[in-house]
Amino acid sequence: MDKPFVAKLRRIDPYVPGEQPQSDTIIKLNANENPYPPAPGVQNVLRTFDAARLARYPDANGRALKSALAARFGLRPTQVFLGNGSDDVLALAFQSFFCSDLPIVYPDITYSFYPVWCDLFRIPYRTLPLDDDFCIDLRDYDAPNGGVIVPNPNAPTGRGLTLDALDDLLRHNTDCVVIIDEAYVDFGGQSAVPLLETYENLLIVQTMSKSRSLAGLRVGYALGSETLIDTLEAVKNSYNSYTMDTLTLAAAEAAVRDEDYFQQICRRVIATRERTAEALRALGFVVSPSQSNFLFVTHPRKDAPAIFAYLREQGIFVRYFKLPRIDTYLRITIGTDEQMDRLLDALRSYL
Amino acid sequence: MDKPFVAKLRRIDPYVPGEQPQSDTIIKLNANENPYPPAPGVQNVLRTFDAARLARYPDANGRALKSALAARFGLRPTQVFLGNGSDDVLALAFQSFFCSDLPIVYPDITYSFYPVWCDLFRIPYRTLPLDDDFCIDLRDYDAPNGGVIVPNPNAPTGRGLTLDALDDLLRHNTDCVVIIDEAYVDFGGQSAVPLLETYENLLIVQTMSKSRSLAGLRVGYALGSETLIDTLEAVKNSYNSYTMDTLTLAAAEAAVRDEDYFQQICRRVIATRERTAEALRALGFVVSPSQSNFLFVTHPRKDAPAIFAYLREQGIFVRYFKLPRIDTYLRITIGTDEQMDRLLDALRSYL
Repeated sequence: MDKPFVAKLRRIDPYVPGEQPQSDTIIKLNANENPYPPAPGVQNVLRTFDAARLARYPDANGRALKSALAARFGLRPTQVFLGNGSDDVLALAFQSFFCSDLPIVYPDITYSFYPVWCDLFRIPYRTLPLDDDFCIDLRDYDAPNGGVIVPNPNAPTGRGLTLDALDDLLRHNTDCVVIIDEAYVDFGGQSAVPLLETYENLLIVQTMSKSRSLAGLRVGYALGSETLIDTLEAVKNSYNSYTMDTLTLAAAEAAVRDEDYFQQICRRVIATRERTAEALRALGFVVSPSQSNFLFVTHPRKDAPAIFAYLREQGIFVRYFKLPRIDTYLRITIGTDEQMDRLLDALRSYL
Repeated sequence: MDKPFVAKLRRIDPYVPGEQPQSDTIIKLNANENPYPPAPGVQNVLRTFDAARLARYPDANGRALKSALAARFGLRPTQVFLGNGSDDVLALAFQSFFCSDLPIVYPDITYSFYPVWCDLFRIPYRTLPLDDDFCIDLRDYDAPNGGVIVPNPNAPTGRGLTLDALDDLLRHNTDCVVIIDEAYVDFGGQSAVPLLETYENLLIVQTMSKSRSLAGLRVGYALGSETLIDTLEAVKNSYNSYTMDTLTLAAAEAAVRDEDYFQQICRRVIATRERTAEALRALGFVVSPSQSNFLFVTHPRKDAPAIFAYLREQGIFVRYFKLPRIDTYLRITIGTDEQMDRLLDALRSYL
């Protein structure tokens, strides 16, 4: 029998993070990481950083990084919130903004953490089905609700919304907070940033894990009105004033300040994606149009789990989701051209 | 009038972090930071770290750092939980372990974040008054409760409990989780680690911000039974699987592996503390016995806020709490011998 103290513990279903094979010989196309290193300025920060500075607490407000991001997006620093990866930012945003008795709404096929946070923070929610091409029907979002979260582009489908569609979504949802999760937007999507001028209830969340090649550093941020950002800051400061460490703040700032490098690696990922999509179609795959750094593919005559298992044996890790509606699909992260050639060779052998 | 979406936001009183003056000429004795740099291995990690590794997600489980900590404390790695500073660990522990309808208990004079987390997570609580010497009366803790949190040594008083007293506390509280917050224990306190063998409901929380000189890196950890650690992991993974970044994990491991340096800087802080306490007593201050890296002092004939303001003018920042029972006290962090001499000179001039 459990000891009495066990009855006082929080009961929770553990969320198990995805597989992270550590071997260097593996081709890792399963976590939407960037195949290119971060901007050269990041290495320079590490090489020249005086470790003695770490004895002091960080700037709790992350002013230098907020200024760099504000300049990048044409916003004020007070419109920027920093977090420990975009999961941290999104979890805080769910807690901060989804406090209504009405359910929040989001697509039925989307980022798997949304229902986890709803359960954790006891937020009622309702999912709205994507159509058969994995597109959002904006009219589904016109009813009253407690909040909206839409990833653009969506994951794991890779499909994006236009700025006009986002404007339509916001025009019909002014009484609640609308979060646009732009984790993958830099690979050809249309950002909602221009809509911040018009909609005070819009929060945009981005990450440095994908387009900035800094998954290992844990930096996410939100852009929005001062009303929303102030609320996020208040909730965050109630937990922990110092979420961003001094080194991370400095390295992330170096990454943001190098716009040329950023544009260059995004273009390379996009070019490799388009080339890979074409080659996969030539092999008979159905490839969902992608504005992200991954492809969502299915083969009409081949079983997805079997392809997944075959690739794994070849040392190529992709992602398979055993979930309703998408259990015949694979999600393949865009690596280097060489990595994608190895993938295509393996698929050719298999087929 | 507020727009309708504002009604759906979380209402919260912002917690304002303490003052962090950035100038180098200031003597900063207000945040209990360590005056010495982190272990030399930390600088070495930064200098040699390949930034390309940051493109990949970190090890979500922080295995290498957990192993180093487990070896340091004679525990299993599964008895170690890692967090983004001990505030992160404590906030998760409050959520994970204080789920009873009975109030949790802690001293009336203690770390100011405890009531903040209770409010945030809607945890009922009751404070138990310290005696006039700022000592805990263990008999106050014998009644049924929803959980116990006791800092040892306590902050801002600096007073510690013996291992026998901790054993007594645990013997009388087996039906709830007991958290011992050991942020300052390495400066002469008695750690509860030997009691982990006996008490499965004991969680010990420590930080690298003080004795490891890594406040800027944000590393805290908890030590406890697998039952408690597994629960913390489940709650943490529901928020954000990747709280610890790759660079921080590597730098913190280097710090933990250098036991000699750690012992050496702790001994230096303790020696400076004892010398400073004696000098302050000679100036007429009443100095609370301290087992931490700060002194809690009052002067029978001088006003604490006035001393605080005078020191500030001299570029010396200490801490004053305008709170019941302690508003005649100052908390002074132990800096280098030179810094403490400057403080003592300033106090001599003032008196």
